[in-house]
Amino acid sequence: MKKNRQWLLDRHPDPDEIIGAEHFKLIETDIASPHGGQLVLKTIALGTSPAQRSYISKGLSMHDKISIGEVMRGRGVGVVSASRHPDFRDGDIVVASTGWQDYSLQTPDSQNPNVLSIRKVVNPVHPLTMSLGILGSAGATAYFGLLDVGLAKAGETVVISAAAGGIGSVVGQIAKLSGCRVIGIAGGPEKCRWLCEGLNFDAAIDYKNENIGNRLDALCPRGIDVFFDNVGGEILDVVLAHISLNARIVICGFISTDYRDDQNMGPRNYTNLVKKRARMEGFFIFDYRHRFDEAEAKLGEWFSAGALINCEDVDDGLETMPLTLQSLFTGGNKGIKLCRVAPDPPN
Amino acid sequence: MKKNRQWLLDRHPDPDEIIGAEHFKLIETDIASPHGGQLVLKTIALGTSPAQRSYISKGLSMHDKISIGEVMRGRGVGVVSASRHPDFRDGDIVVASTGWQDYSLQTPDSQNPNVLSIRKVVNPVHPLTMSLGILGSAGATAYFGLLDVGLAKAGETVVISAAAGGIGSVVGQIAKLSGCRVIGIAGGPEKCRWLCEGLNFDAAIDYKNENIGNRLDALCPRGIDVFFDNVGGEILDVVLAHISLNARIVICGFISTDYRDDQNMGPRNYTNLVKKRARMEGFFIFDYRHRFDEAEAKLGEWFSAGALINCEDVDDGLETMPLTLQSLFTGGNKGIKLCRVAPDPPN
Repeated sequence: MKKNRQWLLDRHPDPDEIIGAEHFKLIETDIASPHGGQLVLKTIALGTSPAQRSYISKGLSMHDKISIGEVMRGRGVGVVSASRHPDFRDGDIVVASTGWQDYSLQTPDSQNPNVLSIRKVVNPVHPLTMSLGILGSAGATAYFGLLDVGLAKAGETVVISAAAGGIGSVVGQIAKLSGCRVIGIAGGPEKCRWLCEGLNFDAAIDYKNENIGNRLDALCPRGIDVFFDNVGGEILDVVLAHISLNARIVICGFISTDYRDDQNMGPRNYTNLVKKRARMEGFFIFDYRHRFDEAEAKLGEWFSAGALINCEDVDDGLETMPLTLQSLFTGGNKGIKLCRVAPDPPN
Repeated sequence: MKKNRQWLLDRHPDPDEIIGAEHFKLIETDIASPHGGQLVLKTIALGTSPAQRSYISKGLSMHDKISIGEVMRGRGVGVVSASRHPDFRDGDIVVASTGWQDYSLQTPDSQNPNVLSIRKVVNPVHPLTMSLGILGSAGATAYFGLLDVGLAKAGETVVISAAAGGIGSVVGQIAKLSGCRVIGIAGGPEKCRWLCEGLNFDAAIDYKNENIGNRLDALCPRGIDVFFDNVGGEILDVVLAHISLNARIVICGFISTDYRDDQNMGPRNYTNLVKKRARMEGFFIFDYRHRFDEAEAKLGEWFSAGALINCEDVDDGLETMPLTLQSLFTGGNKGIKLCRVAPDPPN
């Protein structure tokens, strides 16, 4: 009889600790049976997000915490293996909060906004990892963050931090497709070359080896119209010193500081918001869930036309998940970091 | 023959220095004669703004600097005493950048946006100090900042820093007239009592004697919808920790830090903008100059109906101007701080 492998949280990481396998424990257990209104989802792939670091940290966080012994939380795509819910059939492809395990028990409830993020993929595109990536929440985050919060328009200059990451690499491509001039900030010459040569960015700044302020002075003499920030900290502060009149700063995340409260100095140059009559705004992608179809359709159209490159960085096997997540914090990945758990089912 | 008294900048203040008479020099000179297209304005009253501190400081600033020996810059209301401009007649009441002097030479130029802030007061209301205060740029700043940038709506909770100051005291009154719940932050029990008893605020927090965070916890369990900030620094940071979903933080100024770069730590809690999908936005009142008539009409209507109290704190005599401005930084004033230079002309 088949078993369900699960990664449980085993130890909360200390504030300065890099997360790794030592914080989790892999166990085997039975596969749960669905009751009426429930379904079992067989995980095909798991996504990653910097926010997962804060689920398991000790300090305050905007997310619910995970306790020791609980299955590590995370989003995944899977195939329904046993449904007792009227809206789902065996074989349906579904994106949900699966957690780090082979099989998850789901209780879809359209009345409960907390589980509205269970979403059937009506027209699955293979590889199914894409429904976690450019056709999933990474794509939707980039799409709505850039166009709806950032209001990026053709001819404007867009700067992106963590530009070679899962969200940033899609934001930059959408910005180019929208007629913007795009400058990425990333770590190391190899990523910067990839942004310009692989993804058609207009320029890239290597924050590990270059002075960001000097480069922005040279690249953006008329200022930055939209800054899509995944990083926070010093990079946000330097960019704030280079914004244009009526600039929009989109706060998507702050991986540089979000689990290290002591290192967060706050953006001193926020005062430039007055000088430039500019706006800094945060957003949360699940507030846009009623418009996911719109993003998926547009992103799918660009992808089918060959205009949007699917930049995935896919690890293999559930057992590697702690290291897959770790790579977000060590700068190891290029594009959308995912882990394949099982092969795509046949069409 | 009449003379023109002028306050010239005599010495730049050091960063930690309180400004006072020792930084200026009062001289007497001849009154300039207007050429074609010019007019001479006799100053009736002068306004004050925290920004004037940064005109004369040594460090970087969003404003043009004033050099040693130049007339101190500032806005005033005056009566045209000699016009050679087709749109202005002797006796017209005009608001302009008069500087700290009895008579200023003005060159109205509707093509030059830098001098568009010369504005004829079509229906003057006495005392004319009001056209610098609640019916002037202080009123317009409060009106557009609260309603246009802050999008304050009936039933929402509005918090105001420097609430007993020139802008804050008008913001709070407009917020009450708009059906909001209003909480002011001010220094000392006397100002706090005045906000609640004199201006009908729902509550006031004495930042000198109370813990702002604890008071906001108690007063705003559902969070702050709009924060109108004149102060920056720690107060901004504490308020950011108490915002509601989709809150708007209006950055009007940052008197706590704007000439002391070393003390600006930046708002660490800006990360709450993501958690709360909130916005922080700066604005500059002269961007609204094409809509001043709208603000003036609405504010005048409220004032005529007795719904808006004209809270002026008027010093007397040009010779007192350095101390009049100083009071903004020593917390000495309640309401809109002004200086009367000459009596209102008869109607």
